[in-house]
Amino acid sequence: MKKVITIGRQFGSGGREIGEKLAQKLNYTFYDKNLIILAAEKGGMSHEALGAADEKAANPWLYAAMAQTGQTSINANISTNDTLFSLQSQIIKDIAKNENAVIVGRCSDYILRNEEVELLNVFIYAPTEARVKRIMERMKVTEQQAMQLIKKNDKQRKCYYDFYTDKKWASHSSYDLNLDSDRFGIDKAVEIIAKAIE
Amino acid sequence: MKKVITIGRQFGSGGREIGEKLAQKLNYTFYDKNLIILAAEKGGMSHEALGAADEKAANPWLYAAMAQTGQTSINANISTNDTLFSLQSQIIKDIAKNENAVIVGRCSDYILRNEEVELLNVFIYAPTEARVKRIMERMKVTEQQAMQLIKKNDKQRKCYYDFYTDKKWASHSSYDLNLDSDRFGIDKAVEIIAKAIE
Repeated sequence: MKKVITIGRQFGSGGREIGEKLAQKLNYTFYDKNLIILAAEKGGMSHEALGAADEKAANPWLYAAMAQTGQTSINANISTNDTLFSLQSQIIKDIAKNENAVIVGRCSDYILRNEEVELLNVFIYAPTEARVKRIMERMKVTEQQAMQLIKKNDKQRKCYYDFYTDKKWASHSSYDLNLDSDRFGIDKAVEIIAKAIE
Repeated sequence: MKKVITIGRQFGSGGREIGEKLAQKLNYTFYDKNLIILAAEKGGMSHEALGAADEKAANPWLYAAMAQTGQTSINANISTNDTLFSLQSQIIKDIAKNENAVIVGRCSDYILRNEEVELLNVFIYAPTEARVKRIMERMKVTEQQAMQLIKKNDKQRKCYYDFYTDKKWASHSSYDLNLDSDRFGIDKAVEIIAKAIE
């Protein structure tokens, strides 16, 4: 049985970097944006359309509105997003059958919940100050811009996750292990997660 | 500098057992009910009075009511609880100065936040079904009784923690590491936490 570590993360918490280093350390395959490209190839959709939809749904408020009203009618955006989600789900399930992997985002924890795989679901968070600092350094933006990016991206992630799963994004019970990347640092976080899957 | 691991936990999650085994593994001192006895000895209060107050405040709703109204007047219960909290705080700070320790509950994460100590704050949770099962086995009660115990005890813990700290009980960002004891089992949880303090 293959092992898959899924990583949910607050924006700016370093979750993606932790995922990448973890995959290197364990010699697992790392999946992130690559997944979108795979989905495009498999489903015959254009890379551009998929890239635009991606985890950042074109209009995330539609999810919330639909969820609240129970409305199931669709428009072009929702249709594209649902097609993408369905394609990604199939690809994520195929990965889990065939290789040990680290998968960042994409509701992969939820998609794999009933599959034959040893699954470890991790969530990475950090205090807002630490995330702002990280984003300012990496993206060369102001403090105010970093704050805006955090708010916007975390809202989008929550929206996407809460719409496609029956769990709550960033709620500890949605994951097996939750850790503060600022308290431990990237390398130590990687060590702790590696110990958990060992 | 000494190392202290604090453990917050949902009722029935096995957090206390994890704390005890962790202390054994690391050769740290374990603190739990013993703390109350120490507090009693130090402060000259009767064991019985302290045992009754303990973490299970005599009337936890008083905390919530006081917190909401900003009321600062006291009655006998609040007075006893505040005296106990103050005594325990001093004892917990003394422990952190003098020995490596694992401390379960008592808002010890918050009490030690500004002390000279390497602090690791852990929260242990588990799905309700797993906790019910654990409580039924250990306490020889029915499923319904187990559910009642979970509700009552978790409410009391939340009430106590949220009153005495400026953090939220069981919210992941109140801790460095949060883990699901049912997913990992007691021994594996101990290993993961030991890795985190290593």
